[in-house]
Amino acid sequence: MRMMMEEELEKRAALVTDAIEQLLPVVHPSGLYEASRHLVDSGGKRLRPSMLLLAAEAVGGEAAALAPAAVSIELIHNFTLIHDDIMDNADVRRGRPAVHKLWGESGAILAGDTLYSKAFQVLGLTPADPKRLLGAMNMLSRTCTAICEGQWLDMEFEARDSVSEAEYMEMIEKKTGVLYGASAGMGAILAGASTEVVLAMDLFGRLTGMGFQLQDDVIDLTTPEKVSGKRQGGDLIEGKKTLIIIHALANNVSVPVFGKKEATSEQIQQSISILQKSGSIEYARSRAEEMVAQGKKALQVLPDSDAKTTMLELADFMIRRRY
Amino acid sequence: MRMMMEEELEKRAALVTDAIEQLLPVVHPSGLYEASRHLVDSGGKRLRPSMLLLAAEAVGGEAAALAPAAVSIELIHNFTLIHDDIMDNADVRRGRPAVHKLWGESGAILAGDTLYSKAFQVLGLTPADPKRLLGAMNMLSRTCTAICEGQWLDMEFEARDSVSEAEYMEMIEKKTGVLYGASAGMGAILAGASTEVVLAMDLFGRLTGMGFQLQDDVIDLTTPEKVSGKRQGGDLIEGKKTLIIIHALANNVSVPVFGKKEATSEQIQQSISILQKSGSIEYARSRAEEMVAQGKKALQVLPDSDAKTTMLELADFMIRRRY
Repeated sequence: MRMMMEEELEKRAALVTDAIEQLLPVVHPSGLYEASRHLVDSGGKRLRPSMLLLAAEAVGGEAAALAPAAVSIELIHNFTLIHDDIMDNADVRRGRPAVHKLWGESGAILAGDTLYSKAFQVLGLTPADPKRLLGAMNMLSRTCTAICEGQWLDMEFEARDSVSEAEYMEMIEKKTGVLYGASAGMGAILAGASTEVVLAMDLFGRLTGMGFQLQDDVIDLTTPEKVSGKRQGGDLIEGKKTLIIIHALANNVSVPVFGKKEATSEQIQQSISILQKSGSIEYARSRAEEMVAQGKKALQVLPDSDAKTTMLELADFMIRRRY
Repeated sequence: MRMMMEEELEKRAALVTDAIEQLLPVVHPSGLYEASRHLVDSGGKRLRPSMLLLAAEAVGGEAAALAPAAVSIELIHNFTLIHDDIMDNADVRRGRPAVHKLWGESGAILAGDTLYSKAFQVLGLTPADPKRLLGAMNMLSRTCTAICEGQWLDMEFEARDSVSEAEYMEMIEKKTGVLYGASAGMGAILAGASTEVVLAMDLFGRLTGMGFQLQDDVIDLTTPEKVSGKRQGGDLIEGKKTLIIIHALANNVSVPVFGKKEATSEQIQQSISILQKSGSIEYARSRAEEMVAQGKKALQVLPDSDAKTTMLELADFMIRRRY
């Protein structure tokens, strides 16, 4: 069953990758387009555009026709990563140097800005009823604003002593949830679904996207570096105020290596054990599971179909993945 | 006559400023929206959104209804300034500290990104036929891509020994011309004009915008600091490869202070005299005049109207202004 889902996703990811080649050619001035393509060409799972295509299929639409819309979502995702990497001063992304490491900050700002407008250009090429296309554009622009708000909150939280669970949830909803919501919602709008179905799809994407983010926080603590490619407990020693930390602090659990960048692997493992015993990791995992369960429930508005089945499996995958 | 044009522009600028208050409120997270509003609230002449409104009126549309579209143009303009100021490491803009000086680079990247998506959101609120609104959105997204290309070329030229006149013209067309073109073109599309008229309006805006940029280069050399607020010859000692410099180099005129940041005021004045005698300043001015004349000719497709008269006066103003 898992195997089938992976094949289904790979099929759609390949469609998206082919469409990117068509829709974002390296033209004059080539340096700008090479910088813009660098991260886009570094792979990634293309989960968001695949979700758009699956949502369209699940309401009776044709995936192939909506390839431009799927690409627009992937370009927006990559634009946010390029700008985030400048802000976080991150060196590496998807195993390759970050865009600003190769083209400088100015080049990376512009590469991101280019993907931003290209996303709207490409979305405009989607063959769909004008009103529906406008609806999709409005959803995408609202979503981009929310993503900026989410990133702003994330940066603001770094400078604060404490963050509440509600604040954290708002942040991950905006930073991660809304783009998954727009993916499923835009697929549904463009394929002609009713408002009720579009809203249900948006909710499905949003909740599973939040589950995805919570699972990311869990993976940081539970997956060894040799599996994830990232240092185990990296977020912890960076002092990231994840739901796991928020739970621990709320329960007066002291986490010695929190925010201690120079902690040894042994000290990190000890703090991870503390967070395991305190139930903080389990708490985040269970919240992720709840969100995914709620998201799946939203899909009950849909008739059964292969695409719906794949979406339900994808939802499970988002919190079962180990890296 | 000049006086009347200024009053007409001020009326439209006031409409845009009021609409910004409505369409870009400072909401949660307030820091992000304060950063996004900082430059927008610093004034500026609002020439681009006024051009959009005038173009709409000149084809029989209602300015008030198109206020959201006019705001979208102003937000895009401000977004590009905020990001450009980061790239150029500029400290001051419109007499106030640049956004990145107050909110840091990360804050300024995000403020710009927010204005970017808000522009598309706000444009989506314009009451217009869906097909026409889509046409305007497509024009805006294409324009944003071209602006990125223009800024990339501008940065690329800095690192090069020489730039041809054709390359320079392409750069200013993309960096400055296209947004004026989109202003006039979007006004015409949204007010229901024919494709022929939309293209003529786009051309009008594009050519007068290029004239505006060439005049900017002239102003750098001909306007004293006490009038312009900028150091006379500032672009010259920065080594900016303007059309004036391109003309001088092509004619084997040597300009001693070109790229010499430590030049004295006396040395700068001497180089300005050289550029005057060589006809290089006059060359750029005459090219600006040609472009504006061509742009005005494009408006011959329009019937006479007060709005058309103001547009023609605005075109002249763009190259007659002294600062």
